Amino acid sequence: MATLKLRSVAIDTYRENVAYLHRDCHVYHSEGFQALNKIEIRREENGEAVIAVLNIVDDESITAPGELGLSEQVFQQLGLPEGTPVRVRHATPPRSIQAVHRKIEGEALSAQDYRDIIQDIVENRYSKIEMAAFLVGCAETGFERNEVLHLTRAMVETGDRLQWNEPLVADKHCIGGIPGNRTTMLIVPIVAAHGLCMPKTSSRAITSPAGTADTMEVLAQVDLSPERMREIVHQHRGCLAWGGTARLAPADDILISVERPLSMDSPGQMVASILSKKVAAGSSHLLLDIPLGPTAKVRSHRDALRLRKLFEYVGDRMGITLEVVITDGTQPIGRGIGPVLEARDVMQVLRGDPAAPVDLREKALRLAGRILEFDPDVRGGQGYFLARDILDSGRALARMEAIIDAQGRNPHPPEPGKLVREVRASRDGRVAAIDNLRMASLARLAGAPLDKGAGVDLHRKVGDPVRRNEVLYVIHADFPANFEFACEAASQDDGYTLEEV
Amino acid sequence: MATLKLRSVAIDTYRENVAYLHRDCHVYHSEGFQALNKIEIRREENGEAVIAVLNIVDDESITAPGELGLSEQVFQQLGLPEGTPVRVRHATPPRSIQAVHRKIEGEALSAQDYRDIIQDIVENRYSKIEMAAFLVGCAETGFERNEVLHLTRAMVETGDRLQWNEPLVADKHCIGGIPGNRTTMLIVPIVAAHGLCMPKTSSRAITSPAGTADTMEVLAQVDLSPERMREIVHQHRGCLAWGGTARLAPADDILISVERPLSMDSPGQMVASILSKKVAAGSSHLLLDIPLGPTAKVRSHRDALRLRKLFEYVGDRMGITLEVVITDGTQPIGRGIGPVLEARDVMQVLRGDPAAPVDLREKALRLAGRILEFDPDVRGGQGYFLARDILDSGRALARMEAIIDAQGRNPHPPEPGKLVREVRASRDGRVAAIDNLRMASLARLAGAPLDKGAGVDLHRKVGDPVRRNEVLYVIHADFPANFEFACEAASQDDGYTLEEV
Repeated sequence: MATLKLRSVAIDTYRENVAYLHRDCHVYHSEGFQALNKIEIRREENGEAVIAVLNIVDDESITAPGELGLSEQVFQQLGLPEGTPVRVRHATPPRSIQAVHRKIEGEALSAQDYRDIIQDIVENRYSKIEMAAFLVGCAETGFERNEVLHLTRAMVETGDRLQWNEPLVADKHCIGGIPGNRTTMLIVPIVAAHGLCMPKTSSRAITSPAGTADTMEVLAQVDLSPERMREIVHQHRGCLAWGGTARLAPADDILISVERPLSMDSPGQMVASILSKKVAAGSSHLLLDIPLGPTAKVRSHRDALRLRKLFEYVGDRMGITLEVVITDGTQPIGRGIGPVLEARDVMQVLRGDPAAPVDLREKALRLAGRILEFDPDVRGGQGYFLARDILDSGRALARMEAIIDAQGRNPHPPEPGKLVREVRASRDGRVAAIDNLRMASLARLAGAPLDKGAGVDLHRKVGDPVRRNEVLYVIHADFPANFEFACEAASQDDGYTLEEV
Repeated sequence: MATLKLRSVAIDTYRENVAYLHRDCHVYHSEGFQALNKIEIRREENGEAVIAVLNIVDDESITAPGELGLSEQVFQQLGLPEGTPVRVRHATPPRSIQAVHRKIEGEALSAQDYRDIIQDIVENRYSKIEMAAFLVGCAETGFERNEVLHLTRAMVETGDRLQWNEPLVADKHCIGGIPGNRTTMLIVPIVAAHGLCMPKTSSRAITSPAGTADTMEVLAQVDLSPERMREIVHQHRGCLAWGGTARLAPADDILISVERPLSMDSPGQMVASILSKKVAAGSSHLLLDIPLGPTAKVRSHRDALRLRKLFEYVGDRMGITLEVVITDGTQPIGRGIGPVLEARDVMQVLRGDPAAPVDLREKALRLAGRILEFDPDVRGGQGYFLARDILDSGRALARMEAIIDAQGRNPHPPEPGKLVREVRASRDGRVAAIDNLRMASLARLAGAPLDKGAGVDLHRKVGDPVRRNEVLYVIHADFPANFEFACEAASQDDGYTLEEV
């Protein structure tokens, strides 16, 4: 069979594999080789195959007839040099797509079905629209809790697992949605200083203005090899690393690339996504934070309880000790929103700075206290006080500094963005509400989390009195275009509700 | 705000708008400008906007910093010359996506919801994964028949409508799935010769090896302007044109680009898709063919009846006179599968050739007879005999030749593909079954419908006795790669089931 010469096309198509074929190419003469069709590319008859979606090229300088261009992602996956002869054929839809159709028709799928689907997803056999079909099928009310368990297990099994050889490996997770909620960077040093093992791996922000990994990166390196992470945890009992290097529940990372633009966040997917990562990371004990509020992800007590039960059902069956706390999600936590500003808040709390935000400190102590009580030697109800002692004595700060040095201190930590806009109160009154979604959106428009110094710095919180023209918050940005996007959005809706006193 | 210089990138991305931005471009410094995000592109602050998905480029020869590259589709949509300064901003998700989320949660949507969704889709505001979410949401059992009506109406309203100033405009449609089922090219000349108005617009093949437009194109031009079509219908009472030039229910064409790769064919979508096109085309009377068989689209009598009721419910409320016939869909109709081979079958029937396939002739007469009975002057039950008279007298052939000449006869009709493989019986016996899906797939692999001469020519049909090594069917192809794909697939599964006599 005729072959094509491999060529790298320097286009970043993120999680979508794209192949480029010239319109006048001899294998193109069939319906199967039109734009947006899926093809299978391999070097030899029975060699490893990669799957890609076709784009048709009319410019020989991008891809000439007789060549097969591959976007950066696919070219890397295939791992062959340019000029290598490759064979191309129609990609058949992944076999597990039949199960997705059954799910769409309302059937409950088996553990084997979920294994097959997740295996195909991990092997990049699903297109984005096939993943969307799967996610929407599972978002329906007909997604049973046993299916969530099957899905979680399949996601763990298709990736690597970390082993810590520790009787108790503590972890915490927040379901997200509350800007500035950077408690993890306080909890880890407190818990580690107490002596519990807490090798924290975090993600970068997906839909929020900052993840723990983005914020920790302001202070230290977070991209640690598994070996280095192990050494640091051995010495300091904790770390704050980016979880992206380990192949933990890789299906989750792929599915997120479709969930994010769709704003899909169904309870079943959320539980499977979180618990699969935790189990794969080797955690034995997990504290889960579900913030509740009118602009939080969970907006009613009933929904919060239902989500808690689902976490408990799956967590128990995955063999992880799990506690759920429902917390106040009515407004952002702390003052800063965005990596640099949030890192500043965290360090203020650790240093006992009088300017430190009280709500961030109190929430971190409450959650750290619950984790400390996973320790059999800590008396029930004493965790909070123990955590407070560790923080106020400076032991948490010392541990944080040690972890920063061990991970690799950032010699030139970035500053808050130099482009600054003060957003002011339009009248006298009291702050009645702050919209979490709006504040997150403003910080992202300003450039967070990619621009570390970009974000929003809150000067007033709910309940604070304000006078007309007083500053409610300050927008920081590094680049003019982003700055204008954020300022324009704030002028349309500043996210604050003021009430008469 | 900073602008970028417009540049055309000669890549065909079919129905997905793609924009290319260099990685080092100054507006790129934000989460919103990473690969796969959606951006809005416009010339002036409040000018017309187009929406595109971003790809990031690392090669200045494709798109340099300071430039915004657009794939062929978007570049045409925007309609501005290269070098034009344009502004770029984050595209907000279409507002109607909220309704899609409500649908996914199981809510029945209102007529206004469907209008909003379809309007956004027609304006290219939906990404492929957003369309997939909509389609899967509507594929659920919770898609009520009133919603199908709302969807149909919205699809008609967002496009153009043809007016014929005729009391009776006849149309027919088959839901598809049966290869070789080219009855339309027989029905139109019969019905037009009788004097009923039948301005047939057809699609090209989507998932099948040949559509009526592809097959008619073997004989004549099918890409007619609305004016030319009107003249031909005025003179000959019928035509066989491609419907793609008129903007009839354009949302359907866009949704198909997602339905096809997903193999989604839910009853609600099917009814909305078919009836919106027919109403927009100005048809007053429609005969609907639902083939029933184990490898057809509809596989049980219960499903066929349910689909009939749904067609009737929506058709009645859209003001179209609709009759449904359930036909034999157990095997392909006629002998040829693929445009040239099917055109040959059609002309054999019209010419009264003794070699003409009887099943194609009989099915066409039955359906044409039902359409003739839409004429108030034709007595119930007489349609079939009237149709047979028109065919056997040569009047149908004469009308077909007149229509071919009027549309523009193809002076050099293509021939069956020169690459030929005979597929033979492995043993003595009788043909028990022929798999419609398999035969369609073989013809497509061979290159149909893009290569007109490619396809499959059946020498044996269900019930025929065969001896070992006798030819079951012949594969035709024009290009070696396609030929190999088809031959290899046939050697794995030839689609025939033989039984002991």
